[in-house]
Amino acid sequence: MAAVKACNVLITGANRGLGLEMVKQLLEVNCPKRNIFAGCRDPIGPKCAELKELAKKHPSIITIVHLDVNDPCSIKESAKTVGSLLGESGLNLLVNNAGVLSPGTMLSTPDEDMHKAFNTNIMGPLIVIKEYLPYLRTAAKACGESGMSCDKAAIVNISAVLGSMTSLPSWYSQFPAFSYNVSKAGLNMITVCAALEFKTDEILCVAIHPGWVSTDMGGEKAPMDSRESVERVLHVLSSLTETQHGGFLDYTGKTLPW
Amino acid sequence: MAAVKACNVLITGANRGLGLEMVKQLLEVNCPKRNIFAGCRDPIGPKCAELKELAKKHPSIITIVHLDVNDPCSIKESAKTVGSLLGESGLNLLVNNAGVLSPGTMLSTPDEDMHKAFNTNIMGPLIVIKEYLPYLRTAAKACGESGMSCDKAAIVNISAVLGSMTSLPSWYSQFPAFSYNVSKAGLNMITVCAALEFKTDEILCVAIHPGWVSTDMGGEKAPMDSRESVERVLHVLSSLTETQHGGFLDYTGKTLPW
Repeated sequence: MAAVKACNVLITGANRGLGLEMVKQLLEVNCPKRNIFAGCRDPIGPKCAELKELAKKHPSIITIVHLDVNDPCSIKESAKTVGSLLGESGLNLLVNNAGVLSPGTMLSTPDEDMHKAFNTNIMGPLIVIKEYLPYLRTAAKACGESGMSCDKAAIVNISAVLGSMTSLPSWYSQFPAFSYNVSKAGLNMITVCAALEFKTDEILCVAIHPGWVSTDMGGEKAPMDSRESVERVLHVLSSLTETQHGGFLDYTGKTLPW
Repeated sequence: MAAVKACNVLITGANRGLGLEMVKQLLEVNCPKRNIFAGCRDPIGPKCAELKELAKKHPSIITIVHLDVNDPCSIKESAKTVGSLLGESGLNLLVNNAGVLSPGTMLSTPDEDMHKAFNTNIMGPLIVIKEYLPYLRTAAKACGESGMSCDKAAIVNISAVLGSMTSLPSWYSQFPAFSYNVSKAGLNMITVCAALEFKTDEILCVAIHPGWVSTDMGGEKAPMDSRESVERVLHVLSSLTETQHGGFLDYTGKTLPW
């Protein structure tokens, strides 16, 4: 199976769910120069324990980074730290994975959940993109080859089919998550704008629906576990070129309607 | 030409641009029972002068309502006031027109503009919908006929082609408005969710792109004036049925891709 060969990778929300699983699977690929920067809101807290164990076993590959996407200062500080470690090779792959989901219909969703989803799912990825852009540009330039790929320089926004206006009607009654729906539609627009702005830089930008996954977020009813989801997502990422730039793809590589 | 016959209409941002023009054109239609509730952020300030003149000439039709979509309290207060005036007939047509546009690319847009667009273009319409929903439901029930129309009970969200992920690439370099793009994508998702939630109430929900219009927002380069835009939008509104429920239409009635 094709594998993501990106040397320097940053994953937000890497302490659990899909983020943690992605760290695990990237470790399995034989890639001697790999550095994984694992963003985590609270590196000292109990929710980071598994990631810390993993980092202890692979100290030359994993660097745990304090990165709370709700806190612009923490994002900026993390970018300085990671930037100083990256040096001239830059950042190849940024995975905006951290996110929140509060269930609820429009009528049952409090304003507070709207603000939380906006800050975490829209402003978080946006500020991460802006702060890490210089390192993505460095990586794109350092590559020396034209074209786009996740191994060269890429922004992958973990979105969801629940952010698709076209697909939502078949999901909403079963799984209403109004604040999440609105925020993921916004994140999809960020992906489209990023693709337009960073095209000349040859930084690949895509939104990915990882499937309905049995994480803390997806719940027990979900038909897929995080292992399968991440295997499939990484397979899709490994195959991306400029053809998919600005697109919205699911874990099988299929293009989704907005 | 077909005309909107809705008796009780609320328009937000009715003191200028498309909102003010909509008030003017609704006055022109012979509709004896018409009540127009013209929402305005600052009814005392100079930017409301033209609307006040109009209200003075048509005191039995126009009621100016203090309604600042940035301020949830003002929305709630306005709904109480309007509700007490509506009585048993309810609200037939809610036009979420108030909005802000700050030009700028992703990289040049300050976080502050993102928050402003979120509050005005997403939270504003959302809270207006929630607060006025009881009156829309009253109107839908009072109608006595099945089906949907803007004359019976409808939520019209003034969106924009700039909120379309599909269409944005042909606009972005000419007219970058990143915070607006993201917020209008979010508003489109609100429209889809509203359509799903209020279907059994038979409250019609649509997102409308009024065209690129030479208002304060659209600027001088815009190819259409507000008179023409509103004429065409009202013509589209007058023809809507349940077929367009949950849709995204432009001022010609054409369905736009999300």
